[in-house]
Amino acid sequence: MQAVKIGLLGLGTVGGGTVSVLSNNAEEIARRAGRGIRISHAAAKEYNADAIEGLEQIEEITDDTFRVVDDPDIEIVVELIGGYTPALELVLKAIENGKHIVTANKALIAMHGNQIFSAAQEKGVTVAFEAAVAGGIPIIKAVRESLAANQIEWLAGIINGTGNFILTEMREKGRNFEDVLKEAQSLGYAEADSTFDIEGIDAAHKLTILGSIAFGIPLQFDKTYTEGISRIEQQDVVYAGELGYRIKHLGIAHKSDKGIEMRVHPTLIPESRLIANVNGVMNAILVKGDVVGPTLYYGAGAGSYPTASAVVADLVDVTRALTTDPENRVPHLAFQPDALVDTNVLNIEKVETAYYLRMQVIDRPGVLALITKILGDRGISIEAIIQKEPAPGLSNVHVIFLTQRIQEKNMDEAISLIEKLNCIHGNVTRIRMEMLE
Amino acid sequence: MQAVKIGLLGLGTVGGGTVSVLSNNAEEIARRAGRGIRISHAAAKEYNADAIEGLEQIEEITDDTFRVVDDPDIEIVVELIGGYTPALELVLKAIENGKHIVTANKALIAMHGNQIFSAAQEKGVTVAFEAAVAGGIPIIKAVRESLAANQIEWLAGIINGTGNFILTEMREKGRNFEDVLKEAQSLGYAEADSTFDIEGIDAAHKLTILGSIAFGIPLQFDKTYTEGISRIEQQDVVYAGELGYRIKHLGIAHKSDKGIEMRVHPTLIPESRLIANVNGVMNAILVKGDVVGPTLYYGAGAGSYPTASAVVADLVDVTRALTTDPENRVPHLAFQPDALVDTNVLNIEKVETAYYLRMQVIDRPGVLALITKILGDRGISIEAIIQKEPAPGLSNVHVIFLTQRIQEKNMDEAISLIEKLNCIHGNVTRIRMEMLE
Repeated sequence: MQAVKIGLLGLGTVGGGTVSVLSNNAEEIARRAGRGIRISHAAAKEYNADAIEGLEQIEEITDDTFRVVDDPDIEIVVELIGGYTPALELVLKAIENGKHIVTANKALIAMHGNQIFSAAQEKGVTVAFEAAVAGGIPIIKAVRESLAANQIEWLAGIINGTGNFILTEMREKGRNFEDVLKEAQSLGYAEADSTFDIEGIDAAHKLTILGSIAFGIPLQFDKTYTEGISRIEQQDVVYAGELGYRIKHLGIAHKSDKGIEMRVHPTLIPESRLIANVNGVMNAILVKGDVVGPTLYYGAGAGSYPTASAVVADLVDVTRALTTDPENRVPHLAFQPDALVDTNVLNIEKVETAYYLRMQVIDRPGVLALITKILGDRGISIEAIIQKEPAPGLSNVHVIFLTQRIQEKNMDEAISLIEKLNCIHGNVTRIRMEMLE
Repeated sequence: MQAVKIGLLGLGTVGGGTVSVLSNNAEEIARRAGRGIRISHAAAKEYNADAIEGLEQIEEITDDTFRVVDDPDIEIVVELIGGYTPALELVLKAIENGKHIVTANKALIAMHGNQIFSAAQEKGVTVAFEAAVAGGIPIIKAVRESLAANQIEWLAGIINGTGNFILTEMREKGRNFEDVLKEAQSLGYAEADSTFDIEGIDAAHKLTILGSIAFGIPLQFDKTYTEGISRIEQQDVVYAGELGYRIKHLGIAHKSDKGIEMRVHPTLIPESRLIANVNGVMNAILVKGDVVGPTLYYGAGAGSYPTASAVVADLVDVTRALTTDPENRVPHLAFQPDALVDTNVLNIEKVETAYYLRMQVIDRPGVLALITKILGDRGISIEAIIQKEPAPGLSNVHVIFLTQRIQEKNMDEAISLIEKLNCIHGNVTRIRMEMLE
């Protein structure tokens, strides 16, 4: 059988990796797919030809992206440009031309996925995006296909490698945030503008996608609560450890009677959980289904080859499904388009979690009573308190509270009142806490 | 669209779970699959009707299994009887009748899979067996589909929950093997005849399947080396811990220039590896692909609902693929049937690993020199030695060696010579060791 002809947009990190993988493992891939998968055309503004193994096998490389998208011989377009412009226009044009799409573009799917999938459905083509979430970890396929018997109750993922690298170094080596961030930038893990990683936007893009395929709701990035790790201090990592917890930057999607929670924030989790032991740049997603219980998926969440692994797996899937009736393909968001439900996504105020609170208090009698009264008045039960010895010459001491689960609104009120107390120095540090049971 | 009609063979633990899951989550499943999946007929010799939710929705329950297999309305037969007889005959008859198969029967696939897949290919039907390996963990789909871009280098799995429960209890609570085994039997984790679990036969069935789909080789259970955990002593678990290792009962498949290794045995692995922290009855499989690097899949490896989760996921997949051309379906053993390669499976003698050796020696000068000479003469380098103080009143001491990698044949020779030394008491305990890097 003739090889499938692929048009590739973008020859950067992931694009170059995809070219190399399709070339290096061509035999292995064809033995599985039953036919070859060949990039016939590629488009890129600029690229490093010497760095890409197998580039010579591409028939034509152009800087005109639309030439690839409009080529009648191409059956599948792989979009690895990233960003919104011109990626959105190119993807929509390719769909209009009846081509299937494979993309690693999490921002594009999170922001414009509903529009893209609807256009694809109309044209009877498929858009595959395994590489958009957690790089080489096959989490999209796991949730969409392997857990099809389950009502997904929640999922929690370490889905940004840079953030996990920073938190791991802070814990293992006692380093502070800024110091590790600089190293991550010099190692190439973090971009010079690290906002997307550090402030959780990248993770929120991925969580938006995971939440949709888990619960069968439309993509709605704007409703995902996003909080970064830049305010995590070394001492919080240490105190969490003393209490038997680790701080991880998690993307959490949770479904309850009240609605759906979609939130990215630093989270204390028990150190005995497997996911608490996922270190460095590695990613992992823990998914709780009502039937299967907890399952976890671990691997490299970024990088040229791991992401290319997911792109090529999608290419094999799409190649197999070329002749399938569109209605028998796996639906884009796991559920049939007419079976999506627009379940309410809760505002963070309405979310219920446990909390880690750290505050600097003046070391004098009666202070703890004032604080615990404020907490108690708002129904906040205390699970544990640690009071740290004051540093030599200082009269302020650190007090750490672990609370039981309470609605965020009540905690907001309590913290605002606590911060007004005379005996409190500075702001209260608040980190949400999940047992992941 | 009309619901797909399923014929179910077996209403035991997994069969009952499958009935309940299809009933309880019918809406969720249909929202994903685009149509209902309904068990119209079931066959079982005996079953506990009160224990199975949703049983009343089955049109007809019979004790005549062939009536289900021969029913012309049934499109997919789910075989959950287990064992070889009459499962093999039923599956082959169902295939002959043009029905697709879903099975959780690892023994059947490991022993008769080549014959079954060949019959299925001839009839243009598919045989799905996600539930046969590691229960609810979607490892078959991950390896067959998600890692299609990769040359799989090796995989290592905790694929028997009973064994992992026993080793976990021995480590965490200092209990001995027999004691924990009895508890596992009373908890229902282990069968009264625990040979399949404890001696690694169950794990070898699963490893045989994993090795085939990883490397594209025919199923060959008889070439899988199998060693159980019944000879692991409490003290070995303790000494391994002191050295920074944990003992896990692993199924390992490894491909090198020399051939393929397929082996199930107790293994020392560094405690810092994620898979070393998989405890209790949980399963996990670590897979190393050349492109994606290491990925890990974790979850419940057995039990009614987790296994049913995999059975139902297969039912959704098969339902979607009912109208697919057979050549565009995912091949049974991941590679196209004509692309399977009968790569040599190495005899355990030719396998190369590192070793943990424990021996009781008489505490007198020159003994270590004798032992290290025997090792050195066979090219075995020593990585670490610990000598334990003799117990009060005893003159024998425990000496533990960690060696570097060496061919098993050399180690066999060395151990046989060491055991002949006058200064050695009893047998040498030998546990293989893998870094899983």
